[in-house]
Amino acid sequence: MAERIHALIGAAGYVAPRHMEAMKRTGGALEAAFDPADSVGVMDRYFPDALFFTEFERFAEHLSARRHSPRRVGSISICSPNYLHKSHVTFTLGTGADAICEKPLAMQPEDIDELAALEQETGRKVNTILQLRLHPSIIELRDKVGAGRTVYDVDLTYVTARGRWYYESWKGDDRRSGGIATNIGVHFYDMLTFVFGAPVVNVVHHRAADCAAGYLEFERARVRWFLSINRRDMDGADGFALRAMTIGGIGCFDFSKGFEDLHTVSYREIAAGRGFSLDEVRPAIEIVSLIRQAPLDRHAGRQHPHLARVLADAGRYDRGRPV
Amino acid sequence: MAERIHALIGAAGYVAPRHMEAMKRTGGALEAAFDPADSVGVMDRYFPDALFFTEFERFAEHLSARRHSPRRVGSISICSPNYLHKSHVTFTLGTGADAICEKPLAMQPEDIDELAALEQETGRKVNTILQLRLHPSIIELRDKVGAGRTVYDVDLTYVTARGRWYYESWKGDDRRSGGIATNIGVHFYDMLTFVFGAPVVNVVHHRAADCAAGYLEFERARVRWFLSINRRDMDGADGFALRAMTIGGIGCFDFSKGFEDLHTVSYREIAAGRGFSLDEVRPAIEIVSLIRQAPLDRHAGRQHPHLARVLADAGRYDRGRPV
Amino acid sequence: MAERIHALIGAAGYVAPRHMEAMKRTGGALEAAFDPADSVGVMDRYFPDALFFTEFERFAEHLSARRHSPRRVGSISICSPNYLHKSHVTFTLGTGADAICEKPLAMQPEDIDELAALEQETGRKVNTILQLRLHPSIIELRDKVGAGRTVYDVDLTYVTARGRWYYESWKGDDRRSGGIATNIGVHFYDMLTFVFGAPVVNVVHHRAADCAAGYLEFERARVRWFLSINRRDMDGADGFALRAMTIGGIGCFDFSKGFEDLHTVSYREIAAGRGFSLDEVRPAIEIVSLIRQAPLDRHAGRQHPHLARVLADAGRYDRGRPV
Amino acid sequence: MAERIHALIGAAGYVAPRHMEAMKRTGGALEAAFDPADSVGVMDRYFPDALFFTEFERFAEHLSARRHSPRRVGSISICSPNYLHKSHVTFTLGTGADAICEKPLAMQPEDIDELAALEQETGRKVNTILQLRLHPSIIELRDKVGAGRTVYDVDLTYVTARGRWYYESWKGDDRRSGGIATNIGVHFYDMLTFVFGAPVVNVVHHRAADCAAGYLEFERARVRWFLSINRRDMDGADGFALRAMTIGGIGCFDFSKGFEDLHTVSYREIAAGRGFSLDEVRPAIEIVSLIRQAPLDRHAGRQHPHLARVLADAGRYDRGRPV
Repeated sequence: MAERIHALIGAAGYVAPRHMEAMKRTGGALEAAFDPADSVGVMDRYFPDALFFTEFERFAEHLSARRHSPRRVGSISICSPNYLHKSHVTFTLGTGADAICEKPLAMQPEDIDELAALEQETGRKVNTILQLRLHPSIIELRDKVGAGRTVYDVDLTYVTARGRWYYESWKGDDRRSGGIATNIGVHFYDMLTFVFGAPVVNVVHHRAADCAAGYLEFERARVRWFLSINRRDMDGADGFALRAMTIGGIGCFDFSKGFEDLHTVSYREIAAGRGFSLDEVRPAIEIVSLIRQAPLDRHAGRQHPHLARVLADAGRYDRGRPV
Repeated sequence: MAERIHALIGAAGYVAPRHMEAMKRTGGALEAAFDPADSVGVMDRYFPDALFFTEFERFAEHLSARRHSPRRVGSISICSPNYLHKSHVTFTLGTGADAICEKPLAMQPEDIDELAALEQETGRKVNTILQLRLHPSIIELRDKVGAGRTVYDVDLTYVTARGRWYYESWKGDDRRSGGIATNIGVHFYDMLTFVFGAPVVNVVHHRAADCAAGYLEFERARVRWFLSINRRDMDGADGFALRAMTIGGIGCFDFSKGFEDLHTVSYREIAAGRGFSLDEVRPAIEIVSLIRQAPLDRHAGRQHPHLARVLADAGRYDRGRPV
Repeated sequence: MAERIHALIGAAGYVAPRHMEAMKRTGGALEAAFDPADSVGVMDRYFPDALFFTEFERFAEHLSARRHSPRRVGSISICSPNYLHKSHVTFTLGTGADAICEKPLAMQPEDIDELAALEQETGRKVNTILQLRLHPSIIELRDKVGAGRTVYDVDLTYVTARGRWYYESWKGDDRRSGGIATNIGVHFYDMLTFVFGAPVVNVVHHRAADCAAGYLEFERARVRWFLSINRRDMDGADGFALRAMTIGGIGCFDFSKGFEDLHTVSYREIAAGRGFSLDEVRPAIEIVSLIRQAPLDRHAGRQHPHLARVLADAGRYDRGRPV
Repeated sequence: MAERIHALIGAAGYVAPRHMEAMKRTGGALEAAFDPADSVGVMDRYFPDALFFTEFERFAEHLSARRHSPRRVGSISICSPNYLHKSHVTFTLGTGADAICEKPLAMQPEDIDELAALEQETGRKVNTILQLRLHPSIIELRDKVGAGRTVYDVDLTYVTARGRWYYESWKGDDRRSGGIATNIGVHFYDMLTFVFGAPVVNVVHHRAADCAAGYLEFERARVRWFLSINRRDMDGADGFALRAMTIGGIGCFDFSKGFEDLHTVSYREIAAGRGFSLDEVRPAIEIVSLIRQAPLDRHAGRQHPHLARVLADAGRYDRGRPV
């Protein structure tokens, strides 16, 4: 197989090194990278010969100049702020390359339709990084759940403390990240559709900059979910599970290790033509889109047990800057 | 001793984590940090409660609002691009805090005079990170060299490969970094003054974006120096020393390990009132200022043995973008 | 009187030329200007010798270096996005200069208290541009209304079409401008307190990116107000007044001409020590702060006659990007 | 003829309003505009319904989404900093639109070759704004000069004072503008090739941030040229011509009026398929490229009479920031 030539959008961000690692380990090369910020010394570890641009237009021109060369870029990896994913995927397909996009692929379900039309038109593919689907325990769980008629009771809890910087960064800006359900929760909603089938009910109980909670029903699960980046929610004094999914009758799945190291596996699958397609991505995008817009209704569905604690406690948290 | 309250300018850059580590290890706290780029997730590891700002004016306002509080910031650490160091030190003293500034403290010797006047006026201190002076082997060397009348023959070689991104970043922009002699070499010129006394001759043989070389005389040394960030200069086929200083009659000092981990020691010294002062910093700033402006003269002084190789080879290197 | 030495923050923006014109006409000089954008060719018309900076820190350093010179800056004019006004005023007082700040001076009433403390501490003055208070007709109106016991019925209407660019700029971003009531309406609320006394009732009927409406009571007026930047509201088919204040029993005041040319008068008043003080500014800041946060209540107070039209019409407008 | 649908890159800059005016007057419409700076209130005067973007990627996505619509953009006008022109023209052709690019079209002659290949590949056209070629007096002059064998002696002088801001803006940065010969002089070199034929000798006498001078020979002219943006050169004490071309035996052409108002004529010509082509643009790009790189040689060719004054006077000018 010919060496895969990559480009990278968002080279100075948090997740970019995982992509460079994955490119390296799957035998790929990085031709060019872009980021408006220039703190990209990490490139030395992986691809010191890659070109780097701080202006998108010059990056685009470089790819254009290479499009007829034997070393043309075949795949562009997208690690930009969420609200730019769709623009960057559109750009990617326009250059004649496939996209490997970080989650969430897009902000709205309609975006998926537009990208599908572009896939059709260009003959290129949009792949999304959805690494939980590649985690052996999740695959095992899906096999156990199967396509049966059992409907499981699931509690999904994910607490991961983030400091005040988070709220000042694009991740803390709803218009650029979509908020924590869209930015962090999407991993889990996607995994839930993968394991338990199509979503059928979506109720939001709480939605704040630091914490969100709600109730989701899938074909084979009733899920009380709770997400938080507030350190307050880290103290397990009352036996608070921090990063876990408990599935009635099956047991408990621990998210605190391993699941974020699956970029290399993702790249391998993509190279083999098994990247996750737009249709696979769509349900989770529909879920987060709804979660962003749904009116809060604390009486519908079932509340996650930790929510009461948060609501009682609302005053305790100071993010330094109101949303 | 009361806890030292720090602020940090340049939190998203390469060297910032070393400062946070040093603050933490010396029992300090980080009150607020600034960087125009928002990729600062590393703050979670050290100081998640620190405020973070992407706009300098809001950072400045916050410090101003705290200036009469018991938790006022006593010290601001400066990790910004070199050409802003002086502006940031000026700002720091104006807030009533001491400065802990990355090297080079300033671009011009006159800047040192202005900062000295500000120190006088504000009663605050400007400390510069010059970690080689704190390295046990360098201290030992200085003791060995002593204040005698011997003049040593020294070859100083420092090759550290940097990828193409470097030339697109502020580090590769002469107006923002001063070029590699100012940005990287300053470590070594400072150490040479520390060990061998005042500079007396300064000749530049070569000055390019990727490589510089010259000849310096100090009270107690004649130094042929060679700096490169070009990978071409990394292949030691001909026994090319990569990161070393050889001192005739004494031996060889290896820079390839250890000397970049001295930020905590630096902070400890500063806390004890033994930070490096403006007068100590001045000779190295004079040296780099001269190196930037001196006409090239390949026949003056003595050439470093690797220079010939570079000159013969000038065509072999392509940085992707001319200076 | 000695020539007044000015500096200017926000030199590339829309309102900056009025400040330069006013400086020039009142015999002042511009020493230095700052804007992150560099499209400031207009400076050639007024002050070609002024220094210009695109980095705040370098601008600040320059002012600091001049603070003991005979040409030290005595006054800094602030034309930045609204959310930075307070930071820039704080900076200004810290340099030992007076501030001349565009409206709104600050986003929150508490900000005024903090600035008052800074005025006290530094002995410098914060002036706000509130040009309607200097308009001869408004002064005449205030004299007519006097301090009597009559309570007037007032309709205030201000429609000024802005294109789609507005919503993409800082002016259309609630977090940076405060929205149209804060950014545009503040002129009128301030004028109303100036003419009709302290506010006593504040009801908001409608609050959108393009249009806001509500009801305000002052000591001597009951005001139905309507603001719009939507071109839809420009067509006067039904005799829609576009920029006017009608005062029952007095007549109609036309805002469509003249009131935006009063910067020179403002500067002259400030030079004479008669700039508008924090106490004068406060009521309008309290009004806009409330307008931003108040729950919408369409049944309280009295509705402006144009509001019904807007509410019926909500679907007709497409700004290209939802808030 | 169908309405021409335009897009605009660089909407917040100095020259953008002339393009919007020309679009309007030639019956065109503006669909979308881009600029990283958001001070674009001038759009209200011409095209309030145009979309506006501060991020290039979102602008590009919008054009892509429209490419099959009946209102697809047929022409993109480029008013960005010079060093980005080529990237923006490349982008434009890639969207299937024609380019209308401000001068200088590109920095290097090789760029023209690459753009020619892209024109071939996409079937779209690159037009450059070279308005002097459309000035009636210049056309008349060219007719008078004709294709005869006379070689004229020409003095070209263009002094236009720019304040200190210029050196801090992209226009004063050689890497982004190319310096004053490339940024301003290109108008005149192009006009000279238009009137006097192909360039044959190119000597540079002086090249500074504020002033450049040299000697050019064309088929039918020997030209001593002098460009300055330094106010020092504005005082005509010694009868210094400021903006003129004197042609031996023909007379004097005055540049001080009229020649910058020709954008509408340019757009009309372009609409009629008579835009200036890459081949017409090439000689001036070759001239400025040479002027940037040529070694200074004060003894070759003939010196412009004002140059001596500048050289004698070198110390009198202070730009506030060294190049």
